[in-house]
Amino acid sequence: MKDEIRICKNISENENGELMFAGVNTLELAEKYGTPLYVMDENRIREMCSSFRDAIAREFGEKGRILYASKACSFKRIYEIIASEKLHIDVVSTGEIHTAVRAGFPMQNAYFHSNNKTDNDIKFAIDNKVGHFVVDNVEELESLNRIAGEFGMKQKIILRVTPGIDPHTFEAVATGKVDSKFGSAIETGQAEEITAHALKMENLIFEGFHCHVGSELFEAGVFIDTAKIMLEFVADMYHKLGCFPELLDLGGGFGVRYIASQPTLDVDKTIGEIGGFIKNYCVQLGIEMPSIGFEPGRAIVADSGLTLYTVGTLKTIPGYKTYVSVDGGMTDNIRYALYGAEYTLAVAGKLNEDPDMVCSVVGKCCESGDIIQENIKLPSSTSRGDILACFTTGAYHYSMASNYNRIPRPAIVMIADKKDYPAVRRETLDDLTNLDI
Amino acid sequence: MKDEIRICKNISENENGELMFAGVNTLELAEKYGTPLYVMDENRIREMCSSFRDAIAREFGEKGRILYASKACSFKRIYEIIASEKLHIDVVSTGEIHTAVRAGFPMQNAYFHSNNKTDNDIKFAIDNKVGHFVVDNVEELESLNRIAGEFGMKQKIILRVTPGIDPHTFEAVATGKVDSKFGSAIETGQAEEITAHALKMENLIFEGFHCHVGSELFEAGVFIDTAKIMLEFVADMYHKLGCFPELLDLGGGFGVRYIASQPTLDVDKTIGEIGGFIKNYCVQLGIEMPSIGFEPGRAIVADSGLTLYTVGTLKTIPGYKTYVSVDGGMTDNIRYALYGAEYTLAVAGKLNEDPDMVCSVVGKCCESGDIIQENIKLPSSTSRGDILACFTTGAYHYSMASNYNRIPRPAIVMIADKKDYPAVRRETLDDLTNLDI
Repeated sequence: MKDEIRICKNISENENGELMFAGVNTLELAEKYGTPLYVMDENRIREMCSSFRDAIAREFGEKGRILYASKACSFKRIYEIIASEKLHIDVVSTGEIHTAVRAGFPMQNAYFHSNNKTDNDIKFAIDNKVGHFVVDNVEELESLNRIAGEFGMKQKIILRVTPGIDPHTFEAVATGKVDSKFGSAIETGQAEEITAHALKMENLIFEGFHCHVGSELFEAGVFIDTAKIMLEFVADMYHKLGCFPELLDLGGGFGVRYIASQPTLDVDKTIGEIGGFIKNYCVQLGIEMPSIGFEPGRAIVADSGLTLYTVGTLKTIPGYKTYVSVDGGMTDNIRYALYGAEYTLAVAGKLNEDPDMVCSVVGKCCESGDIIQENIKLPSSTSRGDILACFTTGAYHYSMASNYNRIPRPAIVMIADKKDYPAVRRETLDDLTNLDI
Repeated sequence: MKDEIRICKNISENENGELMFAGVNTLELAEKYGTPLYVMDENRIREMCSSFRDAIAREFGEKGRILYASKACSFKRIYEIIASEKLHIDVVSTGEIHTAVRAGFPMQNAYFHSNNKTDNDIKFAIDNKVGHFVVDNVEELESLNRIAGEFGMKQKIILRVTPGIDPHTFEAVATGKVDSKFGSAIETGQAEEITAHALKMENLIFEGFHCHVGSELFEAGVFIDTAKIMLEFVADMYHKLGCFPELLDLGGGFGVRYIASQPTLDVDKTIGEIGGFIKNYCVQLGIEMPSIGFEPGRAIVADSGLTLYTVGTLKTIPGYKTYVSVDGGMTDNIRYALYGAEYTLAVAGKLNEDPDMVCSVVGKCCESGDIIQENIKLPSSTSRGDILACFTTGAYHYSMASNYNRIPRPAIVMIADKKDYPAVRRETLDDLTNLDI
């Protein structure tokens, strides 16, 4: 196996050159469950959970908080794992709340995000005892205060603020800049306004601030820049309004290695550097350190996942390109079509062969943009029936899957301690017509 | 109502400045069925069906064939309507076949596309008596021949060929060029090879050729260029191989008006010009005219659809932008995120107000790229609770919908003769966890 393939340590090969994932033979998984198939490594998820949990405990002690951003991958079993790892969660919809509740997740540890919570969303979340609302805007603040009053309760909130940082990542996921649909901007004075407003709400308990600056960050730099702006804002609000946050939630955006040329995130080092800065800067600003939260989503689940496909049509167009088709595509992985996302792929049964054929891996959808990856290398013996693995598909794959072309969504199989078990069943053709009247 | 809003004739307003669609008050639909809601105008679908059917009958007589490309919008009721309009269909997956069968569609009138049909796909289609396979490549040809043999039957096929035309539309939907995952290229000699190969297959009946050149074409030009190349290929194959196609299917790609600055497709004129060329050119080439097929998908259903949303958060960031949030987003309309697609929008209850506020309409997903449209104009009185209509959402909306952020998919309500009836029920939270084990 080429080094470029082993982008995460749960990827290995057996003596026959067959791909092992989390210690299990991927060819046997494909045979047992069919393809396309999402496979998730429970041990790796738990390892990433403890990696963040330990780093933050070391750095912030009792004042550290890790929330799994569950939009990255949301199904019942994930919430059970996250609960047993003692992480909190962020949820972004009634659908995620419903799924977490079904999994028995302790909802006092849930934070409800969304730039546009309807009154029904708010009622549903209160009904289900969501611990904190991450309030995005003044309208929500007022609706929530009114509805909490109707429920006769006090709702804990933190306020989403935009620090005005463009993290130079994908435009589509750059959410910390001022011109954003999320939160209230510090720069425009709107963050201060909403804070003052929140403090007057009789049915809401102000507990802090939230921000989120982007995606695929491998170093502490952007988090430190963000923390600086946020701590100055905290100090400013303390002096102006007399409020002090119980929690400063710095959001997520920790990077994940999709291809060999990318680094592997050093969680300890990154959290350590951010923590070092925060502690010093709080002293400098003459404020107590609030609790510090982070919201890794992708970083918890991405490299715990892999997708197995069966190769179908191979087509070489002389002078142009070779196309390798698989039995899935943009329906189970829309990230190339949407973001031009990069991936590492390998033919699961041919790791001991030289990947000497340049090709594009495409799906079976009736759309030219249905591409998994362009210009990658696979063995020239690749042929119909081979199992093809696409790595690092644990985040934003199942959660973004569609039934485009009326294609059923794949099953999810988990692997724990080298044993596989199903977590989400494969969608059937009958499921597809289930909503038709 | 501004002229720019009335992009299709099924859009009108009543005396209170309320949006009427297909003769029904959209505010009442939103009230009755909730939002987000897909609304589809059955009469308009039927009108477009007959428009194509009549144009092709006038131009080609018995030799004209219209296939509805059902990936544009696939659910049971659509197939019933298409069947009653005597159109054929193209299907791209076992899921579409299953849905059409459930709707009682006469499957001898179905054409099965896909660049990557698995053996199981092939068996399923034969089992369900799909009339024609649109064979994409040699591997499929051989699998299909073998499986048809196992079934003891002869399968009718047409061959997908790439004429090598780049229609200068979206890269992602430009499928007629040589470098494509679809079909066999004329330029490289592969189209001839597969034709020769097909003629030798004992369990397959060669019935013709298929090609598809792109999307959003408002004029005959590209179709004529394509027809020229295809007819020359037909003549060439006739002289070289002695085969003559029963059908020459020129694919789809007819344009639809999304915004006022675009034209409305003149079906009669376009088909007329294409037909005129084809008839002359067949004479010139000294060949009989084959049957001529077209595959409109978008053109049949796009402007029969509209999406109704409820406005939530309004956010003005001074010096930057105003964001209007709705209760749907990229989960029910991914076309802006994917293609930067353009749309016309209007506040359904405020058509008599001046649309004087420049804003971006965004969804409720926790993703910055979750945008319906940027920099459009809505009335400055737009506020929480208003119903917002996004027009021309009949194609590639429901069919591409996802549960990203664990958001349930909207219902589809049909309107026929000014009466509404549900065709697809709204997905529930319980549906979302239905696949979880």
